[in-house]
Amino acid sequence: MSDGREGNSAYGHKAFKRSRSHFADRITADGRDGWPVEAGRYRLVVSRACPWASRALVARRLLGLEDALSLAVADPIQDDRSWRFTLDPDGRDPVLGIRFLSEAYDKRETGYPGGVSVPAVVDVPSGKLVTNDFQQITLDLATEWTALHRPGAPELYPKERRDEIDTVMAEVYQDVNNGVYRAGFATDQREYDEACTGVFRRLELLADRLAGQRYLVGDTITEADIRLFTTLVRFDPVYHGHFKCNRWKLAENPVLWAYARDLFQTPGFGDTVDFDHIKRHYYEVHTGINPTGIVPLGPDLSGWLTPHHREELGGRPFGDGTPPGPVRAGEEVPPRGRP
Amino acid sequence: MSDGREGNSAYGHKAFKRSRSHFADRITADGRDGWPVEAGRYRLVVSRACPWASRALVARRLLGLEDALSLAVADPIQDDRSWRFTLDPDGRDPVLGIRFLSEAYDKRETGYPGGVSVPAVVDVPSGKLVTNDFQQITLDLATEWTALHRPGAPELYPKERRDEIDTVMAEVYQDVNNGVYRAGFATDQREYDEACTGVFRRLELLADRLAGQRYLVGDTITEADIRLFTTLVRFDPVYHGHFKCNRWKLAENPVLWAYARDLFQTPGFGDTVDFDHIKRHYYEVHTGINPTGIVPLGPDLSGWLTPHHREELGGRPFGDGTPPGPVRAGEEVPPRGRP
Repeated sequence: MSDGREGNSAYGHKAFKRSRSHFADRITADGRDGWPVEAGRYRLVVSRACPWASRALVARRLLGLEDALSLAVADPIQDDRSWRFTLDPDGRDPVLGIRFLSEAYDKRETGYPGGVSVPAVVDVPSGKLVTNDFQQITLDLATEWTALHRPGAPELYPKERRDEIDTVMAEVYQDVNNGVYRAGFATDQREYDEACTGVFRRLELLADRLAGQRYLVGDTITEADIRLFTTLVRFDPVYHGHFKCNRWKLAENPVLWAYARDLFQTPGFGDTVDFDHIKRHYYEVHTGINPTGIVPLGPDLSGWLTPHHREELGGRPFGDGTPPGPVRAGEEVPPRGRP
Repeated sequence: MSDGREGNSAYGHKAFKRSRSHFADRITADGRDGWPVEAGRYRLVVSRACPWASRALVARRLLGLEDALSLAVADPIQDDRSWRFTLDPDGRDPVLGIRFLSEAYDKRETGYPGGVSVPAVVDVPSGKLVTNDFQQITLDLATEWTALHRPGAPELYPKERRDEIDTVMAEVYQDVNNGVYRAGFATDQREYDEACTGVFRRLELLADRLAGQRYLVGDTITEADIRLFTTLVRFDPVYHGHFKCNRWKLAENPVLWAYARDLFQTPGFGDTVDFDHIKRHYYEVHTGINPTGIVPLGPDLSGWLTPHHREELGGRPFGDGTPPGPVRAGEEVPPRGRP
């Protein structure tokens, strides 16, 4: 997840450590934590800049949960009060009526001293944060919210594949999703070297795996693909330069670049990505590693829309299901955020 | 030229301005400034990190001036006294006997308040700096030191092509050689945008020019190629990430990448390049834009040695001359600085 303190993490402590989610209640079909799945009750708060929150953006689109779970998009630039709704009229989320996501955290636990992070799911009637557990939210969307899925929704976390999916996701998390952050926020050379080496070692292994199969696990899109995608889409715009993961660009690795373009061009993936939010967030917020706050003009993004030829590998992107329909009105990424 | 203050340039004044060389005496065949060309009399002081100094490294090799003009290589990491000879035994240049290049500046002008920069040419008998005029030094090596050139030395600044060479070099200087610095040390977004846009606009024009001809001017290597080369060879290792010139990598532009590899693989070019010095200098010294001082592991440099196929365009690299011989013993770039 992204919290307002990542920008200072490079200096706060020895090695970059991602904080655990403090609020790990689950929204389930049986409501055992007190939060039953219910259409219209909850609001998903994201930043389109954040790779962890973007997992939920993709899953919600693929599963067709737009009507059941409404969406609040925070400004990509936090201030000292963290994520804020400055993109909305009057700077307030129109449904929750709050200016800062921290208000929902405070409603849940007064004086909570931890970081405010996205993704967050908020209970609309009470205004309370339910969960900011970035590792669990999407799994629950896939498995607990099934009654509200659209017709034709894919199985993103199929029971018979969970062991393999979990294994792949754990490796990808350690070395790639979080590895780029450990490289970028390293405070000494050794720590950076170790993290950066790990990023590329894992990416090479993933490229080997994906050379002959269209998706990470089985022949359909799963949660594992969503989690790798949200890091890959940020790789050349941010992680390559800003986080110094520069052994090669994604665009220089034929297999991973084609894989990432394939997903980008699949409805529900690329249509959630706002490159403008992504670039401005990282470069403007992390003044510890980019003191000028200047946002690079590059990279050229036009390649994202070029043919990838991955369909030649076969695969059934949505399994027995179908692609999601068009993006909900009002949730489109503005032109300046697109390739 | 590189002086010890570049690292702070981003904060000292509004826009990055390269200081003029203060010591512009010329070493000429007729000795009109009091400094006649003479074998063994002068010492060229460079940093292999510095693109301006590296022009002289290449010219000296191509012209076979190694015996006539000896070489001192400064540590790529300056301290607050600027360039120093900490790579040499006891931290002293063995010929000049000094620890800091500034000592030669002081001998020339006591209390000189300006920056200490490389390339610098020092008069060995007196220990005085003669010139730090980075724009003139290589032209004089090519045209005034002819009596000491090796047999088969190329004409790097041929009379009949000077107008065209000067025009190309002026454009390359403004937009590329110095443009990357203006982008990297910009203090606001507008200034960066303007510089970075100019870098890539000019590179696109140069790629058009070089698509059908092997070298920038005529069909042989000239000073114009040397000056473009010393920027291009630093592009992916440093300017792309550290200076945010990231619209594309050199390795993504087929024409310029082949052109740069062609020169790199030509005796006298690549054998002067120390990627270790280059990367450590920029990333460790410029703490204003890289506060952690961490040096990236990338990029993968192995591509520099791959076939470029530029010989298919014809051209006579050395005109009626010949390639230079092997690198002088003691001047080889250590393995860790090579692809």
